[in-house]
Amino acid sequence: MVRIAVDAMGGDYAPLAIVRGAEAASAEKVGEVVLVGDENVIAPLLKVRSGIEIVHAPVAVEMKESPSAALRKKKDSSVNKAFGLLKSGSVQAVVSAGNSGAVMAFAIFTLGRIPGVERPAILTIHPNVLGTRSILLDAGGTVDCRPSHLVQFAVMGNVFAKYALGVETPKVGILSNGEEETKGNELTRETHVLLKDADLNYMGYIEGTDLYNGMADVVITDGFVGNVALKVSEGMAEAIIGVLKEKVAGSIRARMGYLLLSGVFKALSRMVDYSEYGGAPLVGVDGVCIICHGKSNERAIKNAIVQAKGFVGKNISGRIKDAMQKYVSLAKGGKEH
Amino acid sequence: MVRIAVDAMGGDYAPLAIVRGAEAASAEKVGEVVLVGDENVIAPLLKVRSGIEIVHAPVAVEMKESPSAALRKKKDSSVNKAFGLLKSGSVQAVVSAGNSGAVMAFAIFTLGRIPGVERPAILTIHPNVLGTRSILLDAGGTVDCRPSHLVQFAVMGNVFAKYALGVETPKVGILSNGEEETKGNELTRETHVLLKDADLNYMGYIEGTDLYNGMADVVITDGFVGNVALKVSEGMAEAIIGVLKEKVAGSIRARMGYLLLSGVFKALSRMVDYSEYGGAPLVGVDGVCIICHGKSNERAIKNAIVQAKGFVGKNISGRIKDAMQKYVSLAKGGKEH
Repeated sequence: MVRIAVDAMGGDYAPLAIVRGAEAASAEKVGEVVLVGDENVIAPLLKVRSGIEIVHAPVAVEMKESPSAALRKKKDSSVNKAFGLLKSGSVQAVVSAGNSGAVMAFAIFTLGRIPGVERPAILTIHPNVLGTRSILLDAGGTVDCRPSHLVQFAVMGNVFAKYALGVETPKVGILSNGEEETKGNELTRETHVLLKDADLNYMGYIEGTDLYNGMADVVITDGFVGNVALKVSEGMAEAIIGVLKEKVAGSIRARMGYLLLSGVFKALSRMVDYSEYGGAPLVGVDGVCIICHGKSNERAIKNAIVQAKGFVGKNISGRIKDAMQKYVSLAKGGKEH
Repeated sequence: MVRIAVDAMGGDYAPLAIVRGAEAASAEKVGEVVLVGDENVIAPLLKVRSGIEIVHAPVAVEMKESPSAALRKKKDSSVNKAFGLLKSGSVQAVVSAGNSGAVMAFAIFTLGRIPGVERPAILTIHPNVLGTRSILLDAGGTVDCRPSHLVQFAVMGNVFAKYALGVETPKVGILSNGEEETKGNELTRETHVLLKDADLNYMGYIEGTDLYNGMADVVITDGFVGNVALKVSEGMAEAIIGVLKEKVAGSIRARMGYLLLSGVFKALSRMVDYSEYGGAPLVGVDGVCIICHGKSNERAIKNAIVQAKGFVGKNISGRIKDAMQKYVSLAKGGKEH
C-alpha cells in the first residue's frame, strides 16, 4: 500500500482542514496516511479509530515566511520532516498546503533535483472547454527562467500529460503575446528555437485566450507569467461570480432564474475550483510532492492525497527521470556535431 | 469641433464595421469624422447624407503583416496617412482597429514620442467589482521592458487615471506573483525600488487576483505579461460563458433559468466586452491615438471615437507631456546629488 506523508502544519486552515482531509482519504483506503506535525495539537483532533500515524514535528513554517530564512532556520519543520520520510523511503509521496516557496526550497534541499533538471516547476492542471484537461508549468516555482529551464519544463510536462492524463501525443505550446513567430519576448524567442529541435510535438506559440480552449495539452511559461496567468483567471472567475450574485440578490425574477440554473452554476464552480483538483505537483525534484493551495479545505487535501497515490502508481517521477536522461544524452549528442 | 481620423482599412471587419461606426458617431455629433482609406471602396458604403469626409489612401496594412515590414514598405498606408493628418494639425486624434504593432510603429515614426518616454504603452481600461474602473499598462506595446520603461508607464498611467477617469490620487501597483516584497522577478524588483522614490501613490506589488477587485487604479506591467493577463481573462470569460450555454442548451429547466437571468447575463457580458470600452489609448506618443481590438464591430468603433473626443477635450496628451517633463527634471535633479 502507498504511504503518503501529509504536512499537518501547512496551509491557511491547518491543522484542522488537513487532519480532516487525511481522515477522509484514509477512510476511503486511498493509502496509509502519515500526518507530520505537532502531536499535541493533532492527536486531539483525530477521530479515535482513524488509525492515522503521527510523526511529531512541532515546528511550522509560517505562510508569509521567507523561504530562504525558513531553509536556514527550520530544518526540523513539519514539511522538511515529511521530505525526510520520503528520502528515507518510509513514504512514497508528500502533500503540503504550506508556504509554497518554502515547500519547494526544502524539496530541493532534501530530495534533490532529478539529473538534468536545473529548476523544478509547479505544474497545474486545468479543465478546458473541450472537456479534457490542459497542464501549465511553471505556475510559480521559478520566476526568472532561462530558455533551457523552459525546455526542461516542456520535457517534464510532456511526460506528465502522457502518463498522468493519458494524452497519447501531447501538444506542447509556449504561452506568448501572439501566435506569430514574430511575437514573444526574448525568453520565448530563444525557447522557441530550442523547442523546434526537441523531440516533442511542439506547436509553437499560443495566446492567453487559448489557456482554456484545449488548444494545447502542455502550456510552457516561466513561473512569473504562469502565476500571473493563473491568478488573473481566478480573479476573473471571482469577479464574474461576484457580479452574478449581486445582480441575483437584487431581483426576484433573477433569483428564480438562479435557482433553476443551480446545477449549471455548480458545474461552473467545479470548473474553476482548485479544491476539485487537489494540488499542483512539483516536478523536477526527486520524488512525488504535491503543493496544495494555501486555502485548501478538507476536500482539496483529500483530493491531493488521491492525486499523490495516482502519481506514485503511474511512476510519474521515474518516467520523468527516464525522459530527462534521454534529453540530456540527446543534448550532448547534438553538441558533439 | 474635434476632428478625428478613423483608419477605414484596419480591423477584421474593415471597412464595413468601421464605416458604420464612423457614421454612428457622426450622427450623434461626436465630432467631425474623417475616414482614411480606399475611396472607391468606402464611398459606396456611406449613406449619402452622412457628410463624412474621405481621405483617399488605398494601401492597407494586413492584420498579420510584420510591423517592421509595413513600416518599410507602406508609408502611404491608410493608418500612416491618418497619423500624417494628426501631425499636420488637420485632425486631433486617430482611431484604428488595424494591426496594433504596425499602428504603434507608424505612430512612433510619424508622431514621435513625448520627451522623456523611451517606449509607448497600450493602456486598457477595465471594470472591477467595486463598479469603478482600473487601468493596465502595458497591454502589449513593448514586450521586453527595462525598469525605467515601467516607471514611465506608471507616470503616464497616473495622469490618465487622474484626468481621464477622475481618480483624485490613483493607487499605482506593479503586477507580480505575490504581494510580498520578496516576490517578483528581476524586472519588478528593480522597478519596485525606483517607484518607491517616485512622486506617486505607489502601493507595491499586487497579484493577478487583484486585477478585477479594484485594489489598484493603475496596474503596471510589461507588454508581454500585460497581454497574457488580458487574453487569459478573455479566455476564462469565454470558457465560463461557453460552458454556461452548453449546459443551458441541455435542459429545459436550465433554459427557463437562463431566460429569467437574461438581464444579469447581459450585464456580465458588458463587463467583459471590449466593444463597450471602445479601444485602448496608445500613451507615450505625441498625440491622441486609440488602438481598437481587431475584432471591433460598429459599436466598438463608435465608442472609440467617443473616447478619442474625451481624451482630446481633457487634454490627456498635454497633461502626460507636463508630467513627463516634471519626471525628467526630477530624475536629473536626483542624479546631480
